[in-house]
Amino acid sequence: AIAEHWRDHYRDGGHQPLKGKRLLLTAGPTREALDPVRYLSNHSSGKMGFALADQAQRMGAEVTLISGPVSLPTPQGVNRIDVESAEQMLAAVMDNLAGQDVFVGCAAVADYRPVAVAEGKIKKSEAAMTVELVRNPDILATVAQQAKRPFTVGFAAETHNVEQYARDKLARKGLDLIAANDVSQPGQGFNANANALTLYWNEGAKDLGHSDKADQARQLLETIAQRLPADENAN
Amino acid sequence: AIAEHWRDHYRDGGHQPLKGKRLLLTAGPTREALDPVRYLSNHSSGKMGFALADQAQRMGAEVTLISGPVSLPTPQGVNRIDVESAEQMLAAVMDNLAGQDVFVGCAAVADYRPVAVAEGKIKKSEAAMTVELVRNPDILATVAQQAKRPFTVGFAAETHNVEQYARDKLARKGLDLIAANDVSQPGQGFNANANALTLYWNEGAKDLGHSDKADQARQLLETIAQRLPADENAN
Repeated sequence: AIAEHWRDHYRDGGHQPLKGKRLLLTAGPTREALDPVRYLSNHSSGKMGFALADQAQRMGAEVTLISGPVSLPTPQGVNRIDVESAEQMLAAVMDNLAGQDVFVGCAAVADYRPVAVAEGKIKKSEAAMTVELVRNPDILATVAQQAKRPFTVGFAAETHNVEQYARDKLARKGLDLIAANDVSQPGQGFNANANALTLYWNEGAKDLGHSDKADQARQLLETIAQRLPADENAN
Repeated sequence: AIAEHWRDHYRDGGHQPLKGKRLLLTAGPTREALDPVRYLSNHSSGKMGFALADQAQRMGAEVTLISGPVSLPTPQGVNRIDVESAEQMLAAVMDNLAGQDVFVGCAAVADYRPVAVAEGKIKKSEAAMTVELVRNPDILATVAQQAKRPFTVGFAAETHNVEQYARDKLARKGLDLIAANDVSQPGQGFNANANALTLYWNEGAKDLGHSDKADQARQLLETIAQRLPADENAN
């Protein structure tokens, strides 16, 4: 009900804290092919990233959403680009990065991919098998390392030591803000409709409480809007 | 249009070739967990298995559908059981096998699963990583090896040497019939709405042509109905 209120508020032309801003978002999982039929992936539903794209558009932003394979409709007014693998996602991000004010890396990018993709389907002849994996490109860190970079926001989905891992990731990747999520808690995280994010930045933190993903998205975007550089030319 | 005709035909109480028969089907992919968030899976959409369940029910059968994770509605009149992993699918199949006249293994069961599932999310510390996999249980072969077994039908999704692999699988697993699909052809197979199956059994073969999955399902089920033992007590 709260999220519904805010959606209407922004739609009805109330104060739009992201008016004139350009946001680039990633959402969903990536799929890393082992062969033409098998892949490695994760349980990301894309719901949080799609909620962010939807809310950002309602808050006045021009939104580009780069999505891995999900079963979600495109939010109204959002420019959506579909990709499969982490490498494809990185290429789409870099192609669309120029002129963005904010980048939110919400996708659950596969950390590793198989070394080589087999051309034909692998035959199952052995009782055991070993898959060699290599690290995927780090999309968030790549964006954060650009000379002319947008305000860069990451996510941390952790099962334990949540704040420690989140703050470590914030510093290591040079992010402006990180949204942490304890995925070991039932009823939140990957496939849930609700979430309970805690935001961390160098000088502070903010607990968003427990609410639906639209409300969490709105709160996160309002915090981003407050923390954006006042002088657009400095960006 | 052809499939629509037959759907109506069976629904309107025409000859129902599977009347009084009990069918157990598996459909969709399985997901094999690496840790609480990552998994190994494949591109099966479940469309063929769900089309088979729907058509079998229209043709008079009592249908139990054991499905991996898919985004499909349950066909009307079908008893659906949802599972994730190959081990869970095998357990559900064995729990429901007694009294079945036909078993169709349409699921794209993951051949391998990670040796051990990590309890917490694996941290990405290494540039390369090795995942040790072990063979999953063979659900089709397990069903075919039962003393009192149903008429057992398998699928073969191949990218090359389709007939050779299909006939090898038919013999090796002791199946009654196998439906082979060349997934290297565009517009058919895993996520497509159309298919082009070829059926093989010990003494023969039947090419079903190229049509939508409902029509392919109907033709496959009619072939199964023709090949079922006439004497029910012999089953």
